[in-house]
Amino acid sequence: MTSSTPGPHRHVTGPARRDAEATKAAITRAARHLLARHAHADITLRAVAERAGVSPPLVLKYFGSKDALFAQIMSFEADAAAILDAPLEGLGRHMVHHLLTSQAEQGADPILRIVFAPLHREHGYVLRANFRTQVVRRLGERLPGADAGLRAEMAVAMLLGLGVMYGIARGPHLRAMAIPEITDRYAPAVQACLTPG
Amino acid sequence: MTSSTPGPHRHVTGPARRDAEATKAAITRAARHLLARHAHADITLRAVAERAGVSPPLVLKYFGSKDALFAQIMSFEADAAAILDAPLEGLGRHMVHHLLTSQAEQGADPILRIVFAPLHREHGYVLRANFRTQVVRRLGERLPGADAGLRAEMAVAMLLGLGVMYGIARGPHLRAMAIPEITDRYAPAVQACLTPG
Repeated sequence: MTSSTPGPHRHVTGPARRDAEATKAAITRAARHLLARHAHADITLRAVAERAGVSPPLVLKYFGSKDALFAQIMSFEADAAAILDAPLEGLGRHMVHHLLTSQAEQGADPILRIVFAPLHREHGYVLRANFRTQVVRRLGERLPGADAGLRAEMAVAMLLGLGVMYGIARGPHLRAMAIPEITDRYAPAVQACLTPG
Repeated sequence: MTSSTPGPHRHVTGPARRDAEATKAAITRAARHLLARHAHADITLRAVAERAGVSPPLVLKYFGSKDALFAQIMSFEADAAAILDAPLEGLGRHMVHHLLTSQAEQGADPILRIVFAPLHREHGYVLRANFRTQVVRRLGERLPGADAGLRAEMAVAMLLGLGVMYGIARGPHLRAMAIPEITDRYAPAVQACLTPG
């Protein structure tokens, strides 16, 4: 995910590397934005480039092809690694906090794009399969006790709902609160799915 | 919502009335289906009629205009009345059970269409405003105690997330369970938002 793409320069300097990462992030954000609003088949590379403020050839340089770009956007691998990156006893808090800070501060979307699956027809199946394997099953494999798979689905459900209420419905009470405070209120229910009793 | 539209017949018989209701329900389902997949501006009356298996004039007869049809689809009034129709002490169970049975058995969607707000640009604002007023605020007004507005947002968040996990991501463990069993497992967390402590 963070491999540099040096282009014509032989030595990648710090600032150039940061520029490349910032450009790739802008392209990713643009593609995700469009995927929440248009069917996969209707999105052109040119539209992604335009929204990201770069040229279409630059998108190709960084991602190879439209298909490769969207394969990456439709993967949850990197996001799952980040949102699940905490010890089990503090995982509920971490998941809630990571979701909200990503949405609020980075305009990113660790998991919420699963809700747009119906929009993408056959690509929606890819999105669903990735989500179930890379996020939910991966979480379930970490949980001890009976019903681990079910409890993982319930925990991720609660997280998705918070993401919708905060980022899409924009509930005014949640929006008025600081993220650590929301985490205090909401995370215990998520944690109770992860480590019940 | 249930006013009959007799058309050329003077006396509406039982079966004719049921036909009218079934046709209106088919048109509503078709419009909701399309709203999860296309921007509001791109959906034609003809596409709605085609998907519902009726003629465009019949859509106009029942709903008046495309704008009137979509105004009704974007309203949560009737759905909120149904999903909130239980005494407070059993409301968590009722909300969960009603959501899942509606999604699973009637192909209906009491509240989940809020997730498609980004797709609809300026109409997304209508959807958001309706959702916050007709569903979340209405629930909050029924809750006793401090933080009623916040707790209503949290309860609806949990419900939305379950709807996404069950209806869109289609988590295999949830899909393998009977709805009353899911209700037993998931509703206590929703109820704890409604009536904490």
